[in-house]
Amino acid sequence: MKFTVQEIADLIKGTVDGDPKTEIHKLSKIEQGEPGSISFLGNPKYTHYIYQTRASAVIVNHDFEPEQTINCSLIRVENAYNAFAMMLEAYNNLNREKSGISKYAAIAENAETGDNCFIGDFVSVGEHVKIGSNVKIYSNTSIGDNVVIGDNTILNAGVKIYNDCHIGNNCTLHSGVVIGADGFGFAPQSDNHYAKVAQIGNVILEDNVEIGANTTIDRATLGSTIIRKGVKLDNLIQIAHNVEIGENTVIAAQTGIAGSTRIGRNCMIAGQVGIIGHLEIGNNVKIAAQSGISTNVPDGAIVMGSPAFEISNYRKAYVYFRSLPKLADRISVLEKKFKGEQ
Amino acid sequence: MKFTVQEIADLIKGTVDGDPKTEIHKLSKIEQGEPGSISFLGNPKYTHYIYQTRASAVIVNHDFEPEQTINCSLIRVENAYNAFAMMLEAYNNLNREKSGISKYAAIAENAETGDNCFIGDFVSVGEHVKIGSNVKIYSNTSIGDNVVIGDNTILNAGVKIYNDCHIGNNCTLHSGVVIGADGFGFAPQSDNHYAKVAQIGNVILEDNVEIGANTTIDRATLGSTIIRKGVKLDNLIQIAHNVEIGENTVIAAQTGIAGSTRIGRNCMIAGQVGIIGHLEIGNNVKIAAQSGISTNVPDGAIVMGSPAFEISNYRKAYVYFRSLPKLADRISVLEKKFKGEQ
Amino acid sequence: MKFTVQEIADLIKGTVDGDPKTEIHKLSKIEQGEPGSISFLGNPKYTHYIYQTRASAVIVNHDFEPEQTINCSLIRVENAYNAFAMMLEAYNNLNREKSGISKYAAIAENAETGDNCFIGDFVSVGEHVKIGSNVKIYSNTSIGDNVVIGDNTILNAGVKIYNDCHIGNNCTLHSGVVIGADGFGFAPQSDNHYAKVAQIGNVILEDNVEIGANTTIDRATLGSTIIRKGVKLDNLIQIAHNVEIGENTVIAAQTGIAGSTRIGRNCMIAGQVGIIGHLEIGNNVKIAAQSGISTNVPDGAIVMGSPAFEISNYRKAYVYFRSLPKLADRISVLEKKFKGEQ
Repeated sequence: MKFTVQEIADLIKGTVDGDPKTEIHKLSKIEQGEPGSISFLGNPKYTHYIYQTRASAVIVNHDFEPEQTINCSLIRVENAYNAFAMMLEAYNNLNREKSGISKYAAIAENAETGDNCFIGDFVSVGEHVKIGSNVKIYSNTSIGDNVVIGDNTILNAGVKIYNDCHIGNNCTLHSGVVIGADGFGFAPQSDNHYAKVAQIGNVILEDNVEIGANTTIDRATLGSTIIRKGVKLDNLIQIAHNVEIGENTVIAAQTGIAGSTRIGRNCMIAGQVGIIGHLEIGNNVKIAAQSGISTNVPDGAIVMGSPAFEISNYRKAYVYFRSLPKLADRISVLEKKFKGEQ
Repeated sequence: MKFTVQEIADLIKGTVDGDPKTEIHKLSKIEQGEPGSISFLGNPKYTHYIYQTRASAVIVNHDFEPEQTINCSLIRVENAYNAFAMMLEAYNNLNREKSGISKYAAIAENAETGDNCFIGDFVSVGEHVKIGSNVKIYSNTSIGDNVVIGDNTILNAGVKIYNDCHIGNNCTLHSGVVIGADGFGFAPQSDNHYAKVAQIGNVILEDNVEIGANTTIDRATLGSTIIRKGVKLDNLIQIAHNVEIGENTVIAAQTGIAGSTRIGRNCMIAGQVGIIGHLEIGNNVKIAAQSGISTNVPDGAIVMGSPAFEISNYRKAYVYFRSLPKLADRISVLEKKFKGEQ
Repeated sequence: MKFTVQEIADLIKGTVDGDPKTEIHKLSKIEQGEPGSISFLGNPKYTHYIYQTRASAVIVNHDFEPEQTINCSLIRVENAYNAFAMMLEAYNNLNREKSGISKYAAIAENAETGDNCFIGDFVSVGEHVKIGSNVKIYSNTSIGDNVVIGDNTILNAGVKIYNDCHIGNNCTLHSGVVIGADGFGFAPQSDNHYAKVAQIGNVILEDNVEIGANTTIDRATLGSTIIRKGVKLDNLIQIAHNVEIGENTVIAAQTGIAGSTRIGRNCMIAGQVGIIGHLEIGNNVKIAAQSGISTNVPDGAIVMGSPAFEISNYRKAYVYFRSLPKLADRISVLEKKFKGEQ
């Protein structure tokens, strides 16, 4: 990449303070700026770096007023963070542009692929698969029979999608994601062994879903495990059979959700949370890291602990937990005094 | 699939109440039944759905007595749930039938494969591997040298088995499973760095074992990590080197078992449990979700907590934990009263 | 393998007590020794086995003094454990020797590979990749564009490395590892949906790093996620974007570290630990299993709990947690007595 400060300002709808002709060929953090790089100042905590940075240009908010001399060019925009995110995106697209179908891909004859797809080496595409336009499928990915994949979706290297699953438009699945493995369903038999319950449902990812590396989403026993539009799942998450996750809910790494639980919209679930099966979690719920959820959670609740309860009550209880030896001492003192007195 | 109600009744050894000629082409949940589908009524909680369902037929227990008009055909069997599971299985087998060896597979010349195997695209089979009959190996799976795989076993897409490991008969390994990676063994050296301890053992899965997606089972340092017959492991589980898991034990997702721990038969271990190394866990043990096990557990124990102890004691203690601020207030009140009195 | 006891003694710089010509063709644990195998006695707890073992030879420390008759040959060395580890390593190298490039590999024309590399079936190597000497890359591994891999590094089957990442010398990555997937970065928008923040940084693994099966290390938003030399990570660990882990730190399975946290040198972090983002963890820190770290941790601290605090204080508090019902009873008794007295 090579652009002038003015070209970048035009792209992000900003105005230039300083030399518009300075050449930029790199993005950097403000604290690690190098000549030829452009950075941004979003968080006021980082303001002091702008007076020392070696970056050639910094994107700032419209109302930024320097209190010392500044050695770089400034590009003023309405929201510096959003403008920089836009640049990251543009840079990313420049660098990851791929197209064409590898001669090492194995695509079933009756599979359909849309316009302008990239299909990498050793990708296996099963019978009757339908792949939309502008889809990118990186190497060593496996797609089972009858899978449907929407437009503009990216499957990174080594994704595995079992038969009959549906992936929406504008989704990104990271490496090692497994969509549609059998739900964990076994019927106990009289002699202590378990008989497998076949899992004949599927998984549906709606549009704009992102799934982190090595996350697993199991197929439903019957019907569908459903991830609604705009959901973002981090790495190494477990979603069991027949779960449903509502729109725009985000879940951090290593959280697990057991079978048939339904999660509402706009929830924020932190990392390493466990949620047992057959629960209803409301909308706009927040769950703190490592919590264990064993009962339904109403809309808007914020909970913590294992089992979890209201977060400020948890925190108060935990303060006393830490000082339990002192509480016990106070009881002992009272007991002795009481005895002495009698 | 297309069957009449009578044909299905014959298959599952049931008797028909209603029209035996109705055509069925789909399985459904009773609450989501559609014309042309068959469903089942297992759990009495769902009985009210049978009076509204649009399913064409419902499998019920012999002794079911309707209390309102029913619009669908009934098939009466001894155990409706088991009969439906049998149908799921039959349906599943119809849909997943695969055979033949992909021209894109790489199989070592000295590897042996039994009758009627399916080997998918980009499967790599190492030197001296022995594969039984009716084995299905889906795409992008890697099998190291000297691996042995029993009859009727299924390796889903992207399974990785390191050299020298043994997989039994009738096993199912889901996508992304890793069998036989090196155990985590390092010897601390005087300058703070660690020297690797080579791990030259293997992993043995006995018959009828199912392993969930992205679960990892490490090879033994010496000898074998052993998963006994009938064990069912869910997704994203970690089994460290030299662990042994007894027959018919089931373990839920994201649980981790550290090195050399031995787990007994018929245990039920919930999700996100951690068990430290070199422990003995007895038979018929139950461990609640998110528990941390740091000592041996005797036969039949039911435990919870981190560190875990007997579950009803844990629950009682947790009730008081939640009300710790109140307990502390009661101590303060006593202290004040006592002071006031003196 | 087939060696005499004398040949092995020469290799590990030991002296023989017994028949130097005995033939050895196998390594075994002392409690499972078989004729023809060699074992070792490191831990004094196992000393009683040496009087019963059927192993043909046992490696012992120089100063070992038998108290009963011994039926096997002994090889005396300075450190029996280290000598045996050396033998394990030698045995492992004999068995895993692989070289050559599979005709089923897809290597970009402008990629470079060093001397004596092994590249297995269905390995995809991207544009401008640089691979050092003596590198072994097993089947179904995917390497993105511009990746650099140092000398003597091993990538096991099914590793996925995204574009622009750097892997050092003498590293081992186990199956299913994902290096360089996008960090979990999304900017909340006014209508509740999230806009993706492109992640254009990379991951750097320095030398002598080992990464366990299915562990994921995300690329930085900008700059690098850095794993310093000698770090050992177990299976199923999550390392988020912009994290830095100091030299010779070891982390057990299923631990997760959130974005931008920096971890010092020589730390020991147990399994299933969660560490939130933007923290500073000092050098020589120890963290107990299942702990949750939500604040900075100073050098040398040993912590436990969720949220974690100093380990001996945690253990004391937990003792009282277990007996909370009794503490509550003591308060009730005091309240009654006090009331009765007034």
